[in-house]
Amino acid sequence: MSEIKTAVADHPIQTLIGRRWSPYGYDPRPLQREDLRSLFEAARWAPSAFNEQPWRYIVAECGNTAAFERLLSCLVEGNQVWAKNASVLALGVTKTTFARNGKPNRHAAHDLGLATAGLIVEATARGLLVHQMGGILPEKARELYGIPEDFEPLTGIAIGYRTTADPPPPDTTPRTRHPQADFVFTDAWAAPL
Amino acid sequence: MSEIKTAVADHPIQTLIGRRWSPYGYDPRPLQREDLRSLFEAARWAPSAFNEQPWRYIVAECGNTAAFERLLSCLVEGNQVWAKNASVLALGVTKTTFARNGKPNRHAAHDLGLATAGLIVEATARGLLVHQMGGILPEKARELYGIPEDFEPLTGIAIGYRTTADPPPPDTTPRTRHPQADFVFTDAWAAPL
Repeated sequence: MSEIKTAVADHPIQTLIGRRWSPYGYDPRPLQREDLRSLFEAARWAPSAFNEQPWRYIVAECGNTAAFERLLSCLVEGNQVWAKNASVLALGVTKTTFARNGKPNRHAAHDLGLATAGLIVEATARGLLVHQMGGILPEKARELYGIPEDFEPLTGIAIGYRTTADPPPPDTTPRTRHPQADFVFTDAWAAPL
Repeated sequence: MSEIKTAVADHPIQTLIGRRWSPYGYDPRPLQREDLRSLFEAARWAPSAFNEQPWRYIVAECGNTAAFERLLSCLVEGNQVWAKNASVLALGVTKTTFARNGKPNRHAAHDLGLATAGLIVEATARGLLVHQMGGILPEKARELYGIPEDFEPLTGIAIGYRTTADPPPPDTTPRTRHPQADFVFTDAWAAPL
């Protein structure tokens, strides 16, 4: 199996956080349904504004070729090239209004992020890798799956096993992040903690 | 210490996911700076669209009374009542445009959610509890901290230790979530996996 690129952290973090990584090289084999259920269970218990749970997922498993190809067709071409080797593909969809009063939920996308992050922790613990994509075709997805107006397809999600072959070139570049001084402030904007 | 309300999950999930909970009762005592650094380090390694890392945090520790009161004043009154007992308060802020081309980043709020979820996992592993709030005063925060126009204060974040006293009433109600059939679909909208 190709190496997992663990984060080079400046401060100690949990293994489940450091090992999370979004590679391009996957080994196309099925994921057990029980594992998949646990992934969405982890998403399910995320917090959300007013416990609205404004997340929905449309899911396709590689064992069902027609369903998988259909979901794959909702990704931009550049993503289809590598995401076709995932075990499971999903679309992350937000409910843009509150169920109780129909008012806009300005935290819907944020809360989908919280839920999917839980899914990723659970996946990492199970030896799986998750690569999310902004590059999806929301209107195509809306049409193919009949997604209602007050919902918005926001993300593509590839879940799979690390490739056993030589990884594609993007997987060999170093992982980088801005230092904390660039995003953890106190007292005033841009004043590092 | 009051009990931690672990999620009653339908499928097995990691302890770090199940123990995550947003209570109202905190024990007001300081958090070590090293712990706080590890929390933001976990946030730092989150994935984001084009690795933009569109998250910023403004942070106040309870040991610095003036700074803490200032951040507390950016929460709506109902949240100030309980959040005043947190060890650390923070605001989660998004960069609404891409650094490289100035275009709107429609995944900014989502990616802040991914980052803060990492912070929460790290906090849970360290015996801390995190309670996020939508109820903040964004324009007050913008003025007090000089937050630029292309950034948006989106969340309040309370980080602390579980109260040793009797917990407030909201902490004794059961935790609930919709079943997976309500949000994990396949083939068509609202068709459960």
